[in-house]
Amino acid sequence: MNHFLSEDFYLGGETGGCIYKEYAEKLPVIDYHNHLNPEDIAKDRRYDNMTELWLEGDHYKWRLMRWAGVHEEYITGDAAPYEKFKKWAAVLQKAIGNPLYIWSHLELKRYFGYDGLLNPDTAERVYKLCNERLGEPEMSARGLILQSKVEYLCTTDDPADSLEWHEKTAASGFSAGIAPTFRPDRVLNIEAGDYAGYIERLSSVSGVNIKDLDGLKAALINRMDYFEERGCRISDHGIEYSYSQIASEENAAQSFNKIMNNLPLEGFGGYYFKSVLMRFLAAEYSKRGWVMQLHYGCWRNANRQAAKRLGANTGFDCMNNTTPVTPLINFLNYLAAKNCLPKTILYSLNPNDDRILASAAGAFQEGGIVGKVQHGSAWWFNDHADGIRAQLRSLASIGYLPAFIGMLTDGRSFLSFSRHEYFRRILCGLLGDWVDKGEFPRDIEALGEIASAVSYYNAKGYFIRQAPSLQE
Amino acid sequence: MNHFLSEDFYLGGETGGCIYKEYAEKLPVIDYHNHLNPEDIAKDRRYDNMTELWLEGDHYKWRLMRWAGVHEEYITGDAAPYEKFKKWAAVLQKAIGNPLYIWSHLELKRYFGYDGLLNPDTAERVYKLCNERLGEPEMSARGLILQSKVEYLCTTDDPADSLEWHEKTAASGFSAGIAPTFRPDRVLNIEAGDYAGYIERLSSVSGVNIKDLDGLKAALINRMDYFEERGCRISDHGIEYSYSQIASEENAAQSFNKIMNNLPLEGFGGYYFKSVLMRFLAAEYSKRGWVMQLHYGCWRNANRQAAKRLGANTGFDCMNNTTPVTPLINFLNYLAAKNCLPKTILYSLNPNDDRILASAAGAFQEGGIVGKVQHGSAWWFNDHADGIRAQLRSLASIGYLPAFIGMLTDGRSFLSFSRHEYFRRILCGLLGDWVDKGEFPRDIEALGEIASAVSYYNAKGYFIRQAPSLQE
Amino acid sequence: MNHFLSEDFYLGGETGGCIYKEYAEKLPVIDYHNHLNPEDIAKDRRYDNMTELWLEGDHYKWRLMRWAGVHEEYITGDAAPYEKFKKWAAVLQKAIGNPLYIWSHLELKRYFGYDGLLNPDTAERVYKLCNERLGEPEMSARGLILQSKVEYLCTTDDPADSLEWHEKTAASGFSAGIAPTFRPDRVLNIEAGDYAGYIERLSSVSGVNIKDLDGLKAALINRMDYFEERGCRISDHGIEYSYSQIASEENAAQSFNKIMNNLPLEGFGGYYFKSVLMRFLAAEYSKRGWVMQLHYGCWRNANRQAAKRLGANTGFDCMNNTTPVTPLINFLNYLAAKNCLPKTILYSLNPNDDRILASAAGAFQEGGIVGKVQHGSAWWFNDHADGIRAQLRSLASIGYLPAFIGMLTDGRSFLSFSRHEYFRRILCGLLGDWVDKGEFPRDIEALGEIASAVSYYNAKGYFIRQAPSLQE
Repeated sequence: MNHFLSEDFYLGGETGGCIYKEYAEKLPVIDYHNHLNPEDIAKDRRYDNMTELWLEGDHYKWRLMRWAGVHEEYITGDAAPYEKFKKWAAVLQKAIGNPLYIWSHLELKRYFGYDGLLNPDTAERVYKLCNERLGEPEMSARGLILQSKVEYLCTTDDPADSLEWHEKTAASGFSAGIAPTFRPDRVLNIEAGDYAGYIERLSSVSGVNIKDLDGLKAALINRMDYFEERGCRISDHGIEYSYSQIASEENAAQSFNKIMNNLPLEGFGGYYFKSVLMRFLAAEYSKRGWVMQLHYGCWRNANRQAAKRLGANTGFDCMNNTTPVTPLINFLNYLAAKNCLPKTILYSLNPNDDRILASAAGAFQEGGIVGKVQHGSAWWFNDHADGIRAQLRSLASIGYLPAFIGMLTDGRSFLSFSRHEYFRRILCGLLGDWVDKGEFPRDIEALGEIASAVSYYNAKGYFIRQAPSLQE
Repeated sequence: MNHFLSEDFYLGGETGGCIYKEYAEKLPVIDYHNHLNPEDIAKDRRYDNMTELWLEGDHYKWRLMRWAGVHEEYITGDAAPYEKFKKWAAVLQKAIGNPLYIWSHLELKRYFGYDGLLNPDTAERVYKLCNERLGEPEMSARGLILQSKVEYLCTTDDPADSLEWHEKTAASGFSAGIAPTFRPDRVLNIEAGDYAGYIERLSSVSGVNIKDLDGLKAALINRMDYFEERGCRISDHGIEYSYSQIASEENAAQSFNKIMNNLPLEGFGGYYFKSVLMRFLAAEYSKRGWVMQLHYGCWRNANRQAAKRLGANTGFDCMNNTTPVTPLINFLNYLAAKNCLPKTILYSLNPNDDRILASAAGAFQEGGIVGKVQHGSAWWFNDHADGIRAQLRSLASIGYLPAFIGMLTDGRSFLSFSRHEYFRRILCGLLGDWVDKGEFPRDIEALGEIASAVSYYNAKGYFIRQAPSLQE
Repeated sequence: MNHFLSEDFYLGGETGGCIYKEYAEKLPVIDYHNHLNPEDIAKDRRYDNMTELWLEGDHYKWRLMRWAGVHEEYITGDAAPYEKFKKWAAVLQKAIGNPLYIWSHLELKRYFGYDGLLNPDTAERVYKLCNERLGEPEMSARGLILQSKVEYLCTTDDPADSLEWHEKTAASGFSAGIAPTFRPDRVLNIEAGDYAGYIERLSSVSGVNIKDLDGLKAALINRMDYFEERGCRISDHGIEYSYSQIASEENAAQSFNKIMNNLPLEGFGGYYFKSVLMRFLAAEYSKRGWVMQLHYGCWRNANRQAAKRLGANTGFDCMNNTTPVTPLINFLNYLAAKNCLPKTILYSLNPNDDRILASAAGAFQEGGIVGKVQHGSAWWFNDHADGIRAQLRSLASIGYLPAFIGMLTDGRSFLSFSRHEYFRRILCGLLGDWVDKGEFPRDIEALGEIASAVSYYNAKGYFIRQAPSLQE
């Protein structure tokens, strides 16, 4: 009588099931923010074995293994692929309440046709079965994209990137839309050790000899044009600092000159520079009709020694509890007052900010654009049933759920698209729950419209409609 | 099989239903904090149509409409009343999970006898039906108060207010108790542009020629006496600043003199002034047996440009995430040490503060007064089923729920009284849920006493007992 | 049809019941953090009456009584024991949703065989029945420990303590393991008025004439050795300050000298001293294989006047909302980089920190140790069903629940051990709930292993395995 991952999982009662099956399930996927490697898509990468696919880059899994006491040798070390897989199976077996338990089994079920459990007893059989399946044609990067009904996805790209892999994919006539995202974190991070070198690279790719702040802006405009020509309509920022209301162009120009001349920044120099550059970029995004994504509240490499040893994105990050919500709202206010607030998505890694961000989004909505300012979907440490439900409930009670652009995977794996199913089930289960509790009438059509909008149509309207190549 | 807003909605199982129907449902309403217009009560205002009643002043609805992409013309603009109503119907139709969905339908059901749904298909019929009903005698301001079983309500009034409308209502022999609340925000807000002008007005109404801090205090005492004679027993403060432990009378006197002489405040001048004045006022409230309400954590007009265009209270506010809980507790501690802590209600707009405020209230209770320091009911962005339940559960687990003074509407509409039903249902559903889960015995009498106390009797004891005109 | 405290309470459906009854229920108890008096254990204290046992030291109950308006005379004052008991019965009767309601009735049921309710009607009968029962042999301190199946417990002790009562208990051959915990709060709290006097006492017990920081360290090493010989493997810190990255040995030495020479500390003197001493202590703990407990976020004696009148731990504390999570993570990072991070348990009194601490713990895990850094069980104001569930769900979704060391009572009463049952029921109910919702397969053996690990085996491995006297 094991109902684990049954047809109805997360759907609650009959109403949720009905909404999911009649509406949300069949819709295509728009995965508007992820960290997939464009080269893998261009080359249609294949995988030798499940360890390569599952364990070579997934720091979510690595953290869990370390927490369970597994030695690093079996995580990022030299142990043989199957040994690593076996360790993972033993850790996973007891990972009750963790999204990886469900994600992993959902991936086995949807992509590998394996309906059983993964544990030390089954590990060998599952490993073989999956490795065989990986040899089939539809298990390449592009095969997985198509299997997952992905209509459109956005990778995350540096302004200095040539986007050659995006060009190659586009030229190949691949049927899914693959767009780059403009993520200028390195442009903003003036304190980083290799900043001047990075600017040199930016000069080179843009053809603008960057000598001062104006040069930097010109180069960025050049790159935005370049990205836009290749389908980009979204920017993204990982933001750890605050926005300053008093920073001036002069402050920023001076800071930039200092760094470029190898002089130390003083006082709030870096902070002012970032504030001024963010204003400039936001105004550009607004002019172009781009979306601005702001990711707040992450403390990257909090365990510095470990991160130094193994590199960034290896599982040593955590939430910050000092999310700069006050400066964030001052930033939105500045842009609104100048009439250059772009469509904006606010994410915080700290779920305590859910209600605050929902209320802030509400203060900056604007007639004519549905959900202009969004509170983004539950992110990273919050991307699990509890976190997703909390974000949806907060958004529904403080804001307007039917205007929500919904799920993105933020993923590094082509199997992660199955998390759109995970999200849609939770969403439909929640809608059904409101009905079953008498808080909303059982009007399946209206409910289906809401579910469809949040699962697919809102993202389509928000991100794609304005992109000529994808005009409806 | 649509159970939306059925007899049992929010009541959970049979236990909750029993508590609600046998106890909470029939009790009168004490609405101890709202923003109703005293003039409307005095003149027994009537409404021409539903747009006037529903959409002319309700920024909750305006926010939702903007979020849904409706143009301002149909919100606060010049569109025809029915056009606005139709837009609202379309937005509301999909507002699942938002309290407005339930509030609006509950108002239609309880005051207009309309049991169906409001949506674009029914909008015309509902509009007509409601407008007709608005012509009936019991649909005036006073009629709605009486229909809603309101025994006592408190408006929110400036110290310089003449309270003429309160006097007129009292003189008319209206059977519900209508009391003013003393809300001296303008007295405290020394940084506001028109401060000297406001003080002049205060001089004029009080008959005290305010020349310095002592004069200000004398004028305030005069006004408190005046308010008290007209039934006031409650004060209210919207507080955005911190309390300073080191501010002195001299600091405050200097700041006041500077402002009155058109000189700029320096350093913490405004902050010290507010701190000292709050101490003075709290001690006065304590002496008089008044209740002090403190509303924290609101960022008013966060979207300044929009608020400038449309005025205050038009939907551009949000939560603050820097609630000054530490200074708040220092303030309570100061007053307790001086034996002049009045009965106090703590509200924060940021629900993250729920547990902190419940624990703080617990540290300042005092024998002889039931629930002397209260954690106030879920406020504004939290005034929905999730927020109310969270506040009640936090209060019950950290404090003593049977001492809670319960619901207030904070409303601007005479239909908002129906939210006492909304609250009582959630309360009774929660009580029943504890029983059904085996966490409390099914002792209906004890449960009924708790429900009755929180729904009505506690507020009566806390606010009214000491008011001679309403002595039990 | 009253199911209150039935066999199945908190267990949810059949799955949770099965896990509890087949696994968690029968396991012994390891209560690794409490505030029991070692003298009571050594002398095998007995109790005259229920007021002595229940109401003479329990500030949780006192707070509730004050909140209900009971006069201090009946709380900490001179009223007769039975009068106090009667007042408590009246307050308790309506304490729905508060853990004391369940704890009190659970204690009556498990230790006194009384299965009914406590309220004003039954108070006299219950009082007599309990007092009689208190005369039976197994109702002494040691009898209660054994009845409660406690295998091992840790009290909380000052470094200057002689541990004579621990020695006497050990010498008596008492079958339960009773270990001290090293809690050097007074050593760190350099700002306290009696600091020099305390250091003199530390000199005296350690035999080290403490003249400077090096002397202090030598004395602490002496005391740690002394504690270790008497079974101590755990330290504990109540932490209100932040950790400084820039504090130096010189800073700390200067601060210490100033205080010892009766000179005032300047600037961040106290702060730097604490930071440096914490580094030293943590490194010592790491070397010895001890566990470091950090208790954050408590504002002790927030109501200073009341605390002054009645003493510390009398019910006038509250949560702090400025938990120094950023400096805490910097501290962990410092220790990790120096390879001297001990096993660490992070507790915050502010439940808003749950998710942050879970994510921080994840960033500092280390191969070879299961759950090296722990997010501690719901503490104090959070030690109730909602708080426990929130901590467990946060831990499960962000971290690895099967590695959790589980419950501690933090208690001052020998009846508090029954809260391990309370916790285990909630845990098993939650595990069952995940199964019943289809989020985990109904594999009772795997579930039982998780429940057993969290209820007992993890704590045993984490705290005891390295203690020679308790080697498995």
